[in-house]
Amino acid sequence: MSSNKTKKLINKVHECERESNEGLVAVNPGMSLVDGYTVVVRTDAPQYLSENKVIVISGGGSGHEPGHAGFVGKGMLTASACGSVFASPPPLCIMAAINAVCQQKPGCDIIMVVTNYTGDRLNFGIACERARVKGHNVEMIVVGEDCALDSVDHSAGRRGLAGTVFIHKIAGAMAEMGKSFSEMVTYLNTVKSKMGTIGLCLSPCSVPGSAPTFTLEHDEMELGLGVHGEAGIKRIKVQTAKEAVKTMMDHMTNKQTSTHIDIEPGNRVALLVNNLGGTSVLELNLVAREAISYLESKGVSIDRAYCGSFLTSLEMAGISITVLHVDDTVVEYLDLPTASPSWRPSYLAPGQKNRKTPGLVKVPAEDKILLDETAEKLDAETADLVYKAVRSACEKLLEMEEELNDLDKQSGDNDTGSTLGAGAKAILGKLGPESAPSLPVDCPHTLALTLGQITETVMGGSSGALYSLFFTGAAQQLKTANKESLSAALSCGLQAIMKYGGAKPGYRTMVDPLHAAVESMADVRNSSLSVAANLKIAAEAAAKAAADTKEMDAQAGRASYVNKSLLNKPDPGAVAVASWLSAVAAAL
Amino acid sequence: MSSNKTKKLINKVHECERESNEGLVAVNPGMSLVDGYTVVVRTDAPQYLSENKVIVISGGGSGHEPGHAGFVGKGMLTASACGSVFASPPPLCIMAAINAVCQQKPGCDIIMVVTNYTGDRLNFGIACERARVKGHNVEMIVVGEDCALDSVDHSAGRRGLAGTVFIHKIAGAMAEMGKSFSEMVTYLNTVKSKMGTIGLCLSPCSVPGSAPTFTLEHDEMELGLGVHGEAGIKRIKVQTAKEAVKTMMDHMTNKQTSTHIDIEPGNRVALLVNNLGGTSVLELNLVAREAISYLESKGVSIDRAYCGSFLTSLEMAGISITVLHVDDTVVEYLDLPTASPSWRPSYLAPGQKNRKTPGLVKVPAEDKILLDETAEKLDAETADLVYKAVRSACEKLLEMEEELNDLDKQSGDNDTGSTLGAGAKAILGKLGPESAPSLPVDCPHTLALTLGQITETVMGGSSGALYSLFFTGAAQQLKTANKESLSAALSCGLQAIMKYGGAKPGYRTMVDPLHAAVESMADVRNSSLSVAANLKIAAEAAAKAAADTKEMDAQAGRASYVNKSLLNKPDPGAVAVASWLSAVAAAL
Repeated sequence: MSSNKTKKLINKVHECERESNEGLVAVNPGMSLVDGYTVVVRTDAPQYLSENKVIVISGGGSGHEPGHAGFVGKGMLTASACGSVFASPPPLCIMAAINAVCQQKPGCDIIMVVTNYTGDRLNFGIACERARVKGHNVEMIVVGEDCALDSVDHSAGRRGLAGTVFIHKIAGAMAEMGKSFSEMVTYLNTVKSKMGTIGLCLSPCSVPGSAPTFTLEHDEMELGLGVHGEAGIKRIKVQTAKEAVKTMMDHMTNKQTSTHIDIEPGNRVALLVNNLGGTSVLELNLVAREAISYLESKGVSIDRAYCGSFLTSLEMAGISITVLHVDDTVVEYLDLPTASPSWRPSYLAPGQKNRKTPGLVKVPAEDKILLDETAEKLDAETADLVYKAVRSACEKLLEMEEELNDLDKQSGDNDTGSTLGAGAKAILGKLGPESAPSLPVDCPHTLALTLGQITETVMGGSSGALYSLFFTGAAQQLKTANKESLSAALSCGLQAIMKYGGAKPGYRTMVDPLHAAVESMADVRNSSLSVAANLKIAAEAAAKAAADTKEMDAQAGRASYVNKSLLNKPDPGAVAVASWLSAVAAAL
Repeated sequence: MSSNKTKKLINKVHECERESNEGLVAVNPGMSLVDGYTVVVRTDAPQYLSENKVIVISGGGSGHEPGHAGFVGKGMLTASACGSVFASPPPLCIMAAINAVCQQKPGCDIIMVVTNYTGDRLNFGIACERARVKGHNVEMIVVGEDCALDSVDHSAGRRGLAGTVFIHKIAGAMAEMGKSFSEMVTYLNTVKSKMGTIGLCLSPCSVPGSAPTFTLEHDEMELGLGVHGEAGIKRIKVQTAKEAVKTMMDHMTNKQTSTHIDIEPGNRVALLVNNLGGTSVLELNLVAREAISYLESKGVSIDRAYCGSFLTSLEMAGISITVLHVDDTVVEYLDLPTASPSWRPSYLAPGQKNRKTPGLVKVPAEDKILLDETAEKLDAETADLVYKAVRSACEKLLEMEEELNDLDKQSGDNDTGSTLGAGAKAILGKLGPESAPSLPVDCPHTLALTLGQITETVMGGSSGALYSLFFTGAAQQLKTANKESLSAALSCGLQAIMKYGGAKPGYRTMVDPLHAAVESMADVRNSSLSVAANLKIAAEAAAKAAADTKEMDAQAGRASYVNKSLLNKPDPGAVAVASWLSAVAAAL
């Protein structure tokens, strides 16, 4: 493959259209392929034929997927004839679509929805004439709603773009509802004139086996393009989404051009924001926001809004915006359910059946921790001990900042000390004076929840989250405040770290000293030792476990990606746990 | 914007997630935003809360749209908490989702579906613990179904990829059906272990405001990647779609790895072919074809198949394939309707409710022109005149090939003579000897239809289509064979050309001589002149009109794009019409 051909996930260039259609029908059993043709037809076409409803056929070049074959299904297209990439299907292919649907039945009513390109108009025209010769009633609805050109001064007319899918939807709905052939022809020819589309892209596409269709610089956008990879009417410098949408919409509604569409305050419209292929959904949704915002600023009511891939230009990074003037009848046609897999209904919540698109609805959230008023409080003396313990632990961590950063050099980015130091500093900053503490040192439950919030917010990253988990997990056991609850809280905090962090004892992490501390406290749980004595034993066990991490292989955290031979010092996270635990024990 | 940052349709980098969500809810009134947070929640959440069903919450970094917010809606997610691009949402954001849904109601049952990444696990873990402190029943279902790595030897585990969306669907369906919290937790933890996913890409993505996350050469693909723009496990040379899918599926099912998924003949699976963002739908459907073909070749039954954008990496050109083992129960959950706008049901035609995905179904098409047996036949003498007329017309065009090509130089690619010559040569080739013609010269109707097919097939391009339109349109008036029908046929052929081709008299095209001919025949319609005399007048009028095109401005066809001053000779297409018409008249 030469470097100027864009990579594609295809097999042979000239088989990609057929094989793509085979995939489409394989995934959608409601569709079938016509033997020997790139024609997709409703699997239930025979039944549909027996209902004597109007047959709606479309098609065109491939490369616009899901247009048009993806819109085959009850309530939309009866069949679609697909040409090669960006090339109109030949009349034989279109006749195959007609014959597959009509079988030998004479006098069928057939509407062909065709995008306005010379090739499509001629080839569908030939099929139209042949079908008439066979005795069918056939009319072509030629859709050309492009607003890019300032004026159309020759017979080519305006190009058919994504607005064609609106016509598919309306035609399919009318047919499904049993509207007559003549009523449909009249209505569709009127409704097609009530819409406009404009496109914009950031990068071109490339036909399979070929180089990109044009080149754009890194700071350029192309305005007013079609769907065949052709360049647009104007190259502009990159704009923000808001500016780009304004450029598009201003152009689309510019009364100076003969191709514009009028929008006035009070108008009701359906909006279609179409992905030209390679735009991320993140951007597409954002563009929808800007288009809605623009229309609302003009006093236009957006009755329905659709956003997704409808008519694409292969992998082109770009979008098109279509505006269709609607009334209750059009909305009814747009809302009628369809089995077509590629139409995305403008979903309304239950009870909102006929509501207009409401714009930006918001729901208030209550985001503070609900304090449990039943949580036990400590006496003043014990609360003061807790104050001292918290202060000592934080001071110890600040004192060790450099040492912990140094230990972290073996495996990471030397920041364990700084990260923990930032948390310690923030806690000290909120602790207040010993005579009037600002943190709830008299209520272990609330204190733990609060420390969980501070560590999460201030420290960030995995360490912050793990400490937050530790404190939040521990808090559940601190609603009562006795000797047992401290041991249970340590254990619960450890469990939360292990559960969500994934580390186990022996993995060379902060779990090792915490686990050792919890185990040692379990051993002495029923003894008569004081809380302080108990914690002293725990701190000693933790210190030993932290030192032992020196010999362990890392199995979690960033150190697990480091060559074992480089890990020859204790884990800094483990050392930190042992240190503050020791400081707490000493303070008590 | 520096050249290494990829262009994006956004406003400010750090606002793109919020603004994208605003677009999502603006288009989907069934969704609402939580004030102050990037949290999307069902608009009908209050009603849902009153139904006492299990609440299903998910979320994660942005950049994966429609994952996860696009799956909010009845029957899928109750809410989704969205972080910055590729970054886990902080616990406060997740708590906002919980609080927006639960309001002040205590003791809610909440399942959080979380992709297995450290950040998501920790942040959702914190929210989980906080929600428990508030009295809710909360369980996290951590999904990690990536099959890329040969083995997972540390605590990180397997990554959560597009298979997560299957869990959203199943969890949402179970909740909607009123299943209990404990039944759901048990079931979801089982079903999540029955699937595998593998990814492949052709090009990387780029986080807004940044350069692409890695570089791929023009002939390289990346196998086994995640959804955060990270490189995969292996770089391979570009393969065809069939080979690439085989590479992916072989790796996914390789029993030598600890992360593989077993597939055996007779297994029933659901298949999900996911667009990683920038893949064209043409290619995506084609990949679905290959994945189905691979699985069917292994004797696996594909009960359901889904193809589309489910969990993306921004605009990455690539795909992932997920295989989930299913039974009737899983299928029931997958099939339950949902209001989520981004889930695409595996559509079944009416009457196919519980059918399996059938693979490639075909419908026979009847593609020959149905001959009308009632069309009038000519006597042998007249038929011989028709034979001579056809032969003369074709010979005349061949004789003029160089002259017509020369005339075409003024406006095009010098091929009018060659294109018409090719058609004439083909007709002569099929005409057969005068004594036993192969073309139906004794039946004008059938002859016209046949000439319409030959010109369309052999000539190609616009000229072929226009001549085909002419003959096919004319055929309808030739079911009877009299003096009037010839005139009517010419007129009808002309109308077909004008209708579908868009040119009018005076546009400097083949329409001009045809129109003059038709007008002249109308003038003498009621006279007693013979057909031959009539045609002679018509041919003379056509010749004059063709010569007059020299002075006209081109308003249709390729010449309309050419500077007027260069158009100083008659239009070659018009000259050709006058010439063969004159040859026909002479032959009669």
